[in-house]
Amino acid sequence: MEVGDLLTSAGINIAICVVLLTLYSILRKQPGNACVYFTRKLVSEPIKGSGDPSCLTRFVPSASWIARAWQATDEEILAVAGVDAVVFMRIVVFSIRVFIIAAIICLFLVLPVNYNEQGKWCPHHKDFHAEPLEAFTIANVKLGSKWFWAHCLALYLISCSACALLYYEYKSITQMRLAHITGSPPNPSHFTVLVRGVPGSPVNSYSESVEQFFSTYYAESYLSHQIVYGACTIDKLVDAEKIYRMLKTINPRSLDSSLPSCLPGGTTHSFMVLNQKADRVLSSTSIDGLHPSQSKKECPAAFVFFKTRYAALVAAQVLQSSNPMLWVTELAPEPHDVYWSNLSIPYKQVWFRKITTLIASVVFMLVFLVPVTFVQGLTQGVQLGQLSYGLPFLKEILKQKFIERVVTGYLPSVILMLFLYTVPPTMMLFSAMEGTVSRSQRKRSACIKVLYFMIWNVFFVNVLSGSIINQLSAVSRFTDIPIQLAQAVPSQATFFTTYVLSSGWASLSCEIMQPFPLFYNFFRKYILRKDEDPSDCALTFPHHTEIPRLLQFILLGFTYSIMAPSILPFLLVFFFLAFLVYRNQFLNVYVPKYESGGEFWPIVHNATIFSLLLAQVIALGVFGLKRSPVASGFVIPLIVLTLLFNEYCRQRFSPVFKRRPAQILIEMDQQDEQLGRKQEIQNQIRSAYFQNPIISFQLSTDPKSRNTSHHHGDEESNCGLDLSKPSMNSTWGPRMA
Amino acid sequence: MEVGDLLTSAGINIAICVVLLTLYSILRKQPGNACVYFTRKLVSEPIKGSGDPSCLTRFVPSASWIARAWQATDEEILAVAGVDAVVFMRIVVFSIRVFIIAAIICLFLVLPVNYNEQGKWCPHHKDFHAEPLEAFTIANVKLGSKWFWAHCLALYLISCSACALLYYEYKSITQMRLAHITGSPPNPSHFTVLVRGVPGSPVNSYSESVEQFFSTYYAESYLSHQIVYGACTIDKLVDAEKIYRMLKTINPRSLDSSLPSCLPGGTTHSFMVLNQKADRVLSSTSIDGLHPSQSKKECPAAFVFFKTRYAALVAAQVLQSSNPMLWVTELAPEPHDVYWSNLSIPYKQVWFRKITTLIASVVFMLVFLVPVTFVQGLTQGVQLGQLSYGLPFLKEILKQKFIERVVTGYLPSVILMLFLYTVPPTMMLFSAMEGTVSRSQRKRSACIKVLYFMIWNVFFVNVLSGSIINQLSAVSRFTDIPIQLAQAVPSQATFFTTYVLSSGWASLSCEIMQPFPLFYNFFRKYILRKDEDPSDCALTFPHHTEIPRLLQFILLGFTYSIMAPSILPFLLVFFFLAFLVYRNQFLNVYVPKYESGGEFWPIVHNATIFSLLLAQVIALGVFGLKRSPVASGFVIPLIVLTLLFNEYCRQRFSPVFKRRPAQILIEMDQQDEQLGRKQEIQNQIRSAYFQNPIISFQLSTDPKSRNTSHHHGDEESNCGLDLSKPSMNSTWGPRMA
Repeated sequence: MEVGDLLTSAGINIAICVVLLTLYSILRKQPGNACVYFTRKLVSEPIKGSGDPSCLTRFVPSASWIARAWQATDEEILAVAGVDAVVFMRIVVFSIRVFIIAAIICLFLVLPVNYNEQGKWCPHHKDFHAEPLEAFTIANVKLGSKWFWAHCLALYLISCSACALLYYEYKSITQMRLAHITGSPPNPSHFTVLVRGVPGSPVNSYSESVEQFFSTYYAESYLSHQIVYGACTIDKLVDAEKIYRMLKTINPRSLDSSLPSCLPGGTTHSFMVLNQKADRVLSSTSIDGLHPSQSKKECPAAFVFFKTRYAALVAAQVLQSSNPMLWVTELAPEPHDVYWSNLSIPYKQVWFRKITTLIASVVFMLVFLVPVTFVQGLTQGVQLGQLSYGLPFLKEILKQKFIERVVTGYLPSVILMLFLYTVPPTMMLFSAMEGTVSRSQRKRSACIKVLYFMIWNVFFVNVLSGSIINQLSAVSRFTDIPIQLAQAVPSQATFFTTYVLSSGWASLSCEIMQPFPLFYNFFRKYILRKDEDPSDCALTFPHHTEIPRLLQFILLGFTYSIMAPSILPFLLVFFFLAFLVYRNQFLNVYVPKYESGGEFWPIVHNATIFSLLLAQVIALGVFGLKRSPVASGFVIPLIVLTLLFNEYCRQRFSPVFKRRPAQILIEMDQQDEQLGRKQEIQNQIRSAYFQNPIISFQLSTDPKSRNTSHHHGDEESNCGLDLSKPSMNSTWGPRMA
Repeated sequence: MEVGDLLTSAGINIAICVVLLTLYSILRKQPGNACVYFTRKLVSEPIKGSGDPSCLTRFVPSASWIARAWQATDEEILAVAGVDAVVFMRIVVFSIRVFIIAAIICLFLVLPVNYNEQGKWCPHHKDFHAEPLEAFTIANVKLGSKWFWAHCLALYLISCSACALLYYEYKSITQMRLAHITGSPPNPSHFTVLVRGVPGSPVNSYSESVEQFFSTYYAESYLSHQIVYGACTIDKLVDAEKIYRMLKTINPRSLDSSLPSCLPGGTTHSFMVLNQKADRVLSSTSIDGLHPSQSKKECPAAFVFFKTRYAALVAAQVLQSSNPMLWVTELAPEPHDVYWSNLSIPYKQVWFRKITTLIASVVFMLVFLVPVTFVQGLTQGVQLGQLSYGLPFLKEILKQKFIERVVTGYLPSVILMLFLYTVPPTMMLFSAMEGTVSRSQRKRSACIKVLYFMIWNVFFVNVLSGSIINQLSAVSRFTDIPIQLAQAVPSQATFFTTYVLSSGWASLSCEIMQPFPLFYNFFRKYILRKDEDPSDCALTFPHHTEIPRLLQFILLGFTYSIMAPSILPFLLVFFFLAFLVYRNQFLNVYVPKYESGGEFWPIVHNATIFSLLLAQVIALGVFGLKRSPVASGFVIPLIVLTLLFNEYCRQRFSPVFKRRPAQILIEMDQQDEQLGRKQEIQNQIRSAYFQNPIISFQLSTDPKSRNTSHHHGDEESNCGLDLSKPSMNSTWGPRMA
């Protein structure tokens, strides 16, 4: 590929980006699209009037959203979108910082060395436009050149600045997480423990067993508990009918009277009323035949509420029983974060499910080699010949220079990108099957799977190109890996540069355009002609797709920074654009339904360290291939130091992301006691976790109550049981000002 | 190697074993050797009179010890040597059981198949004596033979019975461990938490910081604490002089009066008296210049005592501070188990030390390849030619058939064995440098290191023989590992059979003879003419050498059971002998100074599963090489099932070996309260951990008190600070009836 091809590719992408962003700036001004582009605002301020619809400025593109996104402060994002959003933005900021440093070092030190050290590529100076891109890579440097000190120095500077920035980020994110724990209003998840593996007993129901166990062993701190009810989709239909018939016999007004107060904006107090009513209804109906069917559906899992945060922490971390498969405790997720349908999975199955999904993910990764290999063939022009042979009418078209450039320079990335769109939903499905108990945990688990997938299928398979069999045997010689990578990585620089252009830039335009919600909104509004409800199309931020995407570009950035520095400007543009786009999306689109407190940062940290190490190992191999033993020798201590740095961070910071520090929780408990709000908090906790099949059934059949039954946009339905969770405006929501 | 060679080797070994065991049965009857062969009995019953010294039966060999060892029950061993000894014996019993099953299956099913399926080895029936040993291995079976179902069936039966037995053992050992926790008298380690990383403060001393932290956050359950004092060997000498001069000024009678009661057999009560005295001495001397030097030596580590077991458990498992490197808590080891000199290591160093020792161990393992390669060369007769070339006078000797047999069949194992004797002390040193806080943890860590070492250097390197470079490149192709192993393993059957004979049998004879203590005892008694004191030469059981030894033979047993079943009878003899020898040693020789409650069983379990998996992978490779795809196909589900079984055991049992179940501890606390002995226990705990430089110095200079200052036979000295720990006869000792 020559410089001209790359410029063609860049031109196409820039044009597409500009068109899409212009389109976005117009579409966002249409009142009809407000529930696509301003979902978060609509959810938090539902009665906001739309602007003047007849104004002509609606159809004039503007860059106001860029200014708005740029001006927003971190505090604003924290208040509006929570800690997770800020932590996500830190990834982008970190990338911008480290790649600005890398770009300065590499473009002014490494690139001139690569270009001037005329090796095999440039026997004579050609037209710059027709210069092969390899002239700017390390492949251009002569064997045994003395200029490798420049690459080695650059590698040292980049590694050191990356480590320093990583340390700084880890430290500040840890503090942010701690501040989130202490600063937020009393959070029911701090007081609650999720118990699984409650042993069955011939005498007691599960609920009675839980009551008995915790009032025996945690007599001082135990407050109450709430058993989890399970219902699979098949007997739900049978039961629904039964319950409906039964509810007909109850005076409907007793339920209806409490319903208006549970509209979004109502306080938790109203839910308490509702809850108590429901209890009364339950107890009054338990006489006439409901009880047996009800007790049958109790799951061996429960939320147990404690009087203090510290007591809950202790109960969650201690091994309860001498049989570790019984009375398994962990800190409960936030009420909105609970993934109810997985709670009914028996704990004994969980380990087996985890192994099965692990195997399934690996199989999926290997099956995915087929499209990747095809793409790789296209870049090398192999498939092109076959294509024109199979479809002769294409022959003439393919012969044109421009078309050939498009096909080799642009099409492969597009095909790969389209295939990659199927990956996150699949991994999300696997993670749900795994038995995770919270939505954020499911997303984290999916995030790790997608990340492994990306690194393996996008990076390694593309680098170690060839047929599937070749790839497997290429990887099998593990002492030769640095050499193999060193041979393969620099030659793939072109492909990855176009990949940044197409996949990176286009995915950002796609992210801001939100084509699927836009289409869905259009379809619903103009074809189904249904009422719109902003919380119906409210999405939570898809961490599991966006974090692996960023990390993948960080990986490309580090590995190619000294091999082929020409990739860095394109990467920097990507990260700048990402900064604006994601900020805009956090401010306007995504609704933070739950909060993990930045728990995914350790994943990001580890992946970044992995990228650094990979870059160093590749450099080691390249210096070895280029017969520069001194440079190779200097890389080895760098690898050791990077590993030590990672281990230090693991010791110093990561425990805080797994467990909550006792000191802080005890101080918060003491503060509560001093302020005299202990009783109030305890009353609120009891009703925070809301799973009641009868009430939710009643609510979803009652037209008045539709507003309370949120449809969890990007998540599959929760087996129909958690429809009536309180909205984000309740006092429990984290900082929903 | 032919059957004759093997029989020569077996003959030599049987002769040596018989001679050594006969010698042992005579030596043990000599009163002068009582403190070598009956150390444990002497320590627990110190005033026992020796038998009639003039009796002639003293010089007649007898088998009475075998009968005694055979008749001892598990309960007896539990009472005498603790849970760890019983768990160790379970390894031997498990091995005997599983290899009896394997021997029956393989000798009656697999061996006839191997021998009758005339492949390449036996073109015509030779004299049985001159039959090559390969005739009995799987190498003898023809390519694509239909008889491989026999091997496959045998593998299934062995794997299933091994898993069933492992499950049974894990279950019963878990119960034994729980019974040990509940059944033992109140143990100070249950009430105590070891805190490291106490933050320094300009205002407070470490002791004051600890006091302040725990009385703030654990106000209800905090009892008291004891700071750790550090002293390195250099300033110990300076301080010793200072203290000695100071002590001269105190009336020595005030200390002397309490000393007679702390002879072995005294109760803890006397230690309390002593302790209080010591405190008084300390407080009275603190005025005249001792205090500043004392406070300077405070370490940022302390033992914190709690009122209940549960409180201690909670404090140990919770993350205390938002900086995970500060206030690091863990359950304290038993008082005798504390490795005091490592407590003064700053916690911040520990992770770094762990990495360094890991690297050092790996380097040591690689350096050790040199002797192993030499040994391997000897077996193949390579070095033999070189040896006779370098030393011409050996030429004639080496030509003799018998000598050649000895050199190829016996000498290699002896050389390897001698080299291997240097491994456990080295690994023990590494584990001590690692910063482990207890002796049992140090032994466990050394055990794992020795185990890896053994598996790598004895098994893999011998199997994948050749030069060092060849070995590394052989292992580097990891998809070919089953094939490579399949080619190499059967051909090494002979070497490992002789290894079992020489290393296995001889090491047991050596174990029962105790040559080093015997020589030391002789030297001290007849050359130095010193008084004997049984506790001076009391040894604790060397788990870190004996467990890897057993596991290594289990590995050989599983991998060779279907490849070369002729190894199994020799292995069974080894395990039977081990059963008798170790029981005898537990009953008579080793003194249990501390108790881990079988915490090393998970290591044994994992290693056994690894051996099983390795056997299955090798079988997979062999069936593949022998062109029996059906048999290969049948092995794969077996591997998957074994992995699932291991994962299930890990979920079901292993947490109990890492953490103590809260339920049990709470019940024990409640029982204490009901029995009204809470106060008594709390008083005892305070004085259980005893590290006092002044008293220990006084004790070791006073000739009367020598009996209390135990010399920790196999362990290096504890930086001079923990000399005056209470003897095993105190009420704190685990079941020292």
